[in-house]
Amino acid sequence: MARLAVAARAFSASASAGGGVAMVQGASRGIGLEFVRQLLRRSDQGRVVATCRAPASAAELQKLKEEHAPGRLTVLPLDVTDESTIEATAASIAETHGSLNLLINSTGILSIPNVIQPETTLSKVQKSSLLLAYEVNAVGPILVIKHMRPLLKVGGRSETGRGFSLVANMSARVSSIGDNGLGGWHSYRASKTALNQLTKTASIELGRKDNIACILLHPGTVDTDLSRPFQRNVPKDKLFTREFSVQKHLSIIDNVKKSDNGKFFAWDGQEIPW
Amino acid sequence: MARLAVAARAFSASASAGGGVAMVQGASRGIGLEFVRQLLRRSDQGRVVATCRAPASAAELQKLKEEHAPGRLTVLPLDVTDESTIEATAASIAETHGSLNLLINSTGILSIPNVIQPETTLSKVQKSSLLLAYEVNAVGPILVIKHMRPLLKVGGRSETGRGFSLVANMSARVSSIGDNGLGGWHSYRASKTALNQLTKTASIELGRKDNIACILLHPGTVDTDLSRPFQRNVPKDKLFTREFSVQKHLSIIDNVKKSDNGKFFAWDGQEIPW
Repeated sequence: MARLAVAARAFSASASAGGGVAMVQGASRGIGLEFVRQLLRRSDQGRVVATCRAPASAAELQKLKEEHAPGRLTVLPLDVTDESTIEATAASIAETHGSLNLLINSTGILSIPNVIQPETTLSKVQKSSLLLAYEVNAVGPILVIKHMRPLLKVGGRSETGRGFSLVANMSARVSSIGDNGLGGWHSYRASKTALNQLTKTASIELGRKDNIACILLHPGTVDTDLSRPFQRNVPKDKLFTREFSVQKHLSIIDNVKKSDNGKFFAWDGQEIPW
Repeated sequence: MARLAVAARAFSASASAGGGVAMVQGASRGIGLEFVRQLLRRSDQGRVVATCRAPASAAELQKLKEEHAPGRLTVLPLDVTDESTIEATAASIAETHGSLNLLINSTGILSIPNVIQPETTLSKVQKSSLLLAYEVNAVGPILVIKHMRPLLKVGGRSETGRGFSLVANMSARVSSIGDNGLGGWHSYRASKTALNQLTKTASIELGRKDNIACILLHPGTVDTDLSRPFQRNVPKDKLFTREFSVQKHLSIIDNVKKSDNGKFFAWDGQEIPW
């Protein structure tokens, strides 16, 4: 399997390090919030659009906004299950920024008490869980790409970026069918596998027509609210901090080539089989 | 890639050729109907359960029922989008037959005028189409497996079968992420890719605990209602009759080994990459 050459051009030509515009979808906590923090920190020019369901109650994002110069961070409402909010956010970004160089889809649903739980056996698989995971983890990100596409197309032509614009979708190693040796987690696995296919499918058209590349990322097991109920069996040195995982991801994002379009990378740059 | 050895034991040890019970889900037309026809024809003992949404108006199935000895073909109502009908069918089979040796999930949705169409571009992707394709093509078959599992477990122990019972889910080559070079057909592709993951996930648990193997099949482009609107660009020698495609599939089904559990085969026995 190929390993991304993580070369010295990190922090040089990326959209976020220049004067470009990066959007982080699902930014109120976890990996998404850390992406926003690090994207803001790495230059004093790049602008970041952070979206979440309820900006008013996203205290960490509001704090980051106050800590940075006016205009550097915009926080907008977006619920991936409500397409009208995706369209409204696209319209707002079009008016304020006019383009996007980088889109990170970071939302993901794995467990919510009394609503959805990773299944340990087929007999626990419920239609409602299968559909909810699909709607949030697969349908949501593809609709975001659909509506941000015109902005990414402009970003792909701009000189602030890497020569093309980039979509990075957060997937997970458990989405790999070839790598599935344990079973279980039916709803989550299937939704992320579908996300992989939808991303690959979009990457073909967007790469050819609009100078946009799409990649998939596996963050490892990161210490977030999402993974907390499932950390017990993770060896200590395999449980990453959000800071570490996002650093690794930004290093991949900085070094992606157009020929990486449609690929699936782990946090360490290793390609993951489908 | 491996090719299944299609050896001389076809028509010998299979569940359908002996006194076993085979269920074909989605049997009123197309490939499902042809499976029923050929399963009934190949022995005078095997029993077949054919399910469809509206048995009363499934003229071809009713005709087949009349043409065969009493008890050989049972036609039961099942709508994969209504779980209560799956449970009712499982209860009915439990009472009449007590076991299943073979389950073929043959339903699939690709296009319905004014409801769902294979997308030619991302801008045509609709949430409603994504969710409908997922519900019918991925959620449906996995719920059928969930409820038929106890019957398949009994079938796996019986001496009428192959030494284990078998689930064959109809997938399609366009579900392969690795083989996706054209893009398009987002809803259909993603739903069948998810079916592949759900089948692989189930196969691990069912193979280990219940002596049930699960495989995925790609029928080629077969002359059915499903493919009719899309046959224009298919070379004549690549458009299969239902008879040919189902013969090929039954040859795979007859020769499957337990070690093939979780694999994805094309009509010619070639393994398809994920």
